[in-house]
Amino acid sequence: MNFKIAKREFMDVLTLQARAIANNTPLPALSGIKIVASEDALSLTSSDSNISIKTVLKVGDNTTLTILEEGEIVIESKYLLEIVRKIDSELISIEVMDGTLTKISGGNSEFKINGIRAFEYPEINFEFTSGYPFKLDTKLFSDIIEQTSFACSDKEIRPVLTGVNMKAENGKLHVNATDSFRLASKTVDVDQELKFNITVPAKYLSDVLHSIVGEESISIIIDSQKICFLFKNSRIQTRLLDDAFPDTAKLLAGTFTQVLTVNSKNLINAVDRSSFIKSDGKNIVRLSINANQIDITCSSQMGSSYEKIDVISYEGQPLNISCSGKYLIDALRAIRSDVAVISFNGELRPMVIKPDKDSDVVQLISPVRTYR
Amino acid sequence: MNFKIAKREFMDVLTLQARAIANNTPLPALSGIKIVASEDALSLTSSDSNISIKTVLKVGDNTTLTILEEGEIVIESKYLLEIVRKIDSELISIEVMDGTLTKISGGNSEFKINGIRAFEYPEINFEFTSGYPFKLDTKLFSDIIEQTSFACSDKEIRPVLTGVNMKAENGKLHVNATDSFRLASKTVDVDQELKFNITVPAKYLSDVLHSIVGEESISIIIDSQKICFLFKNSRIQTRLLDDAFPDTAKLLAGTFTQVLTVNSKNLINAVDRSSFIKSDGKNIVRLSINANQIDITCSSQMGSSYEKIDVISYEGQPLNISCSGKYLIDALRAIRSDVAVISFNGELRPMVIKPDKDSDVVQLISPVRTYR
Repeated sequence: MNFKIAKREFMDVLTLQARAIANNTPLPALSGIKIVASEDALSLTSSDSNISIKTVLKVGDNTTLTILEEGEIVIESKYLLEIVRKIDSELISIEVMDGTLTKISGGNSEFKINGIRAFEYPEINFEFTSGYPFKLDTKLFSDIIEQTSFACSDKEIRPVLTGVNMKAENGKLHVNATDSFRLASKTVDVDQELKFNITVPAKYLSDVLHSIVGEESISIIIDSQKICFLFKNSRIQTRLLDDAFPDTAKLLAGTFTQVLTVNSKNLINAVDRSSFIKSDGKNIVRLSINANQIDITCSSQMGSSYEKIDVISYEGQPLNISCSGKYLIDALRAIRSDVAVISFNGELRPMVIKPDKDSDVVQLISPVRTYR
Repeated sequence: MNFKIAKREFMDVLTLQARAIANNTPLPALSGIKIVASEDALSLTSSDSNISIKTVLKVGDNTTLTILEEGEIVIESKYLLEIVRKIDSELISIEVMDGTLTKISGGNSEFKINGIRAFEYPEINFEFTSGYPFKLDTKLFSDIIEQTSFACSDKEIRPVLTGVNMKAENGKLHVNATDSFRLASKTVDVDQELKFNITVPAKYLSDVLHSIVGEESISIIIDSQKICFLFKNSRIQTRLLDDAFPDTAKLLAGTFTQVLTVNSKNLINAVDRSSFIKSDGKNIVRLSINANQIDITCSSQMGSSYEKIDVISYEGQPLNISCSGKYLIDALRAIRSDVAVISFNGELRPMVIKPDKDSDVVQLISPVRTYR
């Protein structure tokens, strides 16, 4: 194998590939990037067996790539990135010298490192047996993930709750994330024909979001096992979570006995100021709401805090309700609205948080019972 | 105790005080800042028992301070900083309510936290029985520390080597730091009368450097136990290291058999590119020097690197010498010169690195024996 490529172009590809490299992998080959040079293309693959990334650079196709000799090798990702980053030359040359010894050179610098034979790299299946790709605007896709995925569980007790559920039917895509104490939900319009119900691990979605920065749109293809995101000359795929996602639709239905309208930023700032007051590592805030103001109190062995802010409007009986300060801040931020409408059904039922204007995003938080 | 002070002014003092707070202290009071309000002044003290900081704000003396009631209390440093940082008000009010319960308030926010009684705080001795303060330009003091302290040992086997030695005599201040494999040395002019020989723990010197940013000059006072840095309304003092510092003067004397003149940046960059090639966590570079060029090679099980750079001049027999790449980079950076003059006495004796122009800084590195 022997090829030359512009440092800048290669660095972009390596940075993307590195997102799928696991730090601790039982299979040594997976700590490397598999590079295959064929007559007219260079293909790079990396995988931590949950998320996999493949990039194909075609010779002459807006690329600086020149292939001098075909071949394949796996090179430790962190060394490859370090070397290419540090070489002080516009053009990088990579050549397998002898067996697995690979020379990476440019300018006055020359590095030789031992690679791993390509046949030791596991076969990654990038084929889709069913499904067809559909396009999604990148900005919309980012919004969907950012406004929901924070509500996923970070515990593996119920694995399906560590994922974001995406359900397409009747021209709507419903996206839900929940850790069973809170729920983040967003609904957007999509093609009428789309029909699927999948749950994608949240941690890989954040890798996808970072990778597609700068793209205008991405294509998505789904089958029963995996979801793949296609953009430019690359594809990122991740496995899906198997278990059935809980039905959340019924949680958001129903009527409410109290409705509060409040400036989001004022409420966020007031709750944030008390956030260091914790019991057992949790910051629980108590909201006492009446027609004029909200008193926000918080206390633990450590001490106590008290804040008051004005309401914009409040309908219903005065209410005392406690909840996680962090959840409240997360939800208020996620609705991305200057004014929040928070609906209650007394102090024991979940509160529902929406923007004041028509919107496709809804946040739900279960209250915490406190005794005092 | 009851006083009011501008948030901004108080925050500056608290940020400085926090530098002397240890994260894990056996004495709970030391995780707090001791605040004493007297009739006409507010004094704050913090200490981790190695480094101690005291700030005294005098009423009316260019301060926004108003003291309403005298008293004293110790408040957990991290909570105090967090609360004052978050309160959304120009003026902060601090009042001991009842015993140790302290109210910190401003704007619409009010926090109550439990402090610690002031008598539980250990007595910190800020008095000096001997010595008198001398002035030093802050920039000069920073240079002295930055160009030497990196060469200190980070191991406690020989505690005195974790410190920077400062020896004043005959109008010269000699500053030395060594881990016994390398030596960094700087000499500057001072008052003829100054005479001392002390070793200051390097880790506290970096706290001092951060604290005096923005000051034009500092005053220093030294006795047999401690050194104190005075600036504005604050003083920082740290204990000294007891043991005798090794005599380093003889290491830098003598003649040399080979003298290399080279562009510092080119050599730094070439060595830096190979820095990830490590054996047992160490990056050892081999320099092969002749009248025209330096070949820099580096190898380990992981792979190898090769670089060549031009010399500006070289006198003496060709030389092969190996040393720590990190030490070489540190030394070349510390001399702060575009052109470095490196003097050798064969491949087994230390090399001496100086700027090409007259300078008060000298770096010395012991070579490493390699077999090949």
